[in-house]
Amino acid sequence: MSEDELDARHAEKMKKKKAARDKILATKTIEKGLLIVHTGKGKGKSTAAFGLVFRALGNGMKVGVVQFVKGKWETGERKVLEHFPDQVTMTAMGDGFTWETQDRQRDIAAAKAAWERAKALIMDDEHDLVLLDEMNIVLRYDYLDIADVVAFLKTKPEKKHVVVTGRNAKDELIDLADLVTEMTMIKHPFRSGVKAQKGIEF
Amino acid sequence: MSEDELDARHAEKMKKKKAARDKILATKTIEKGLLIVHTGKGKGKSTAAFGLVFRALGNGMKVGVVQFVKGKWETGERKVLEHFPDQVTMTAMGDGFTWETQDRQRDIAAAKAAWERAKALIMDDEHDLVLLDEMNIVLRYDYLDIADVVAFLKTKPEKKHVVVTGRNAKDELIDLADLVTEMTMIKHPFRSGVKAQKGIEF
Repeated sequence: MSEDELDARHAEKMKKKKAARDKILATKTIEKGLLIVHTGKGKGKSTAAFGLVFRALGNGMKVGVVQFVKGKWETGERKVLEHFPDQVTMTAMGDGFTWETQDRQRDIAAAKAAWERAKALIMDDEHDLVLLDEMNIVLRYDYLDIADVVAFLKTKPEKKHVVVTGRNAKDELIDLADLVTEMTMIKHPFRSGVKAQKGIEF
Repeated sequence: MSEDELDARHAEKMKKKKAARDKILATKTIEKGLLIVHTGKGKGKSTAAFGLVFRALGNGMKVGVVQFVKGKWETGERKVLEHFPDQVTMTAMGDGFTWETQDRQRDIAAAKAAWERAKALIMDDEHDLVLLDEMNIVLRYDYLDIADVVAFLKTKPEKKHVVVTGRNAKDELIDLADLVTEMTMIKHPFRSGVKAQKGIEF
């Protein structure tokens, strides 16, 4: 086929694609706050959630962040959040990963306090989006009762967006969610001896 | 089992987990620039890439962004990037999604120009991380030759991080990459008639 023919065929194909897409878009008319879950064993669950947080901040929205498990993300992300002091409410509850603290009662108390904070941020009229970072981890350890969490999330204000991250999301949460993405690890540099690096991993 | 027994068993289990983790971490000693690929049909590929970009900016690193396909991310992300004027070099090459332009020759020219810009950002001594947003799309349409792209990426400076996003990543790129994450769609609000919303989708 000549380049001219390729071009013509391409234009025709894209025209059809655009028409099909426009038709689909016209049927999407509902606006509502979404319950978004990022789960799976791959990387990018919290990173994509912070991508959503930063996008929302760029759009002038107010964001609440509750950190259920202390990770390494503070360094870089925190410095960016500091650029939006009037738009961000940040709560860090964890004292370290559970395998660092080795103190189950302290972890349960921290999880419960974080959840109380989360509920207040979700119910208020101020924040547009609330990130519950790594909440799936504490749900998996049953530090919080999934039935309580799901019952509460069903009552969230219509317009509020809630993002939950962490591997092993419970089925009950997935059932309730509007948008669920699983991050799957295809290849990881750890396997070839590469260490976690500043600016990339934390 | 009593709460005390549960606590003790938990502490023992977490102690072992931490020891195993520390042992693994000690073997990870290589520091190098990573080639990272975000692919798959799910959401979060570009969002997680921008999460990496913002984390790098928070850590004081310099970042180059090349946009191969014009999407909706500009609004929110661009406003956040503007907070770091001395750390970001941004190039937007696309004139719209391919099914919007319907002009194959213009798209090929735009892809080639974007790739020239990308090569310069990857080879310079200034930028620590370069995001090639949606480059997988133009590779899939063969607007760029995958063999050329892979041959060039093999020569990238040792310390430079490169992030490539877009569905349908080519096998040759996955083979070369250090870290590949596939975003899998488990549930999407589009299916229930919810439209793309400001602050969440763009």
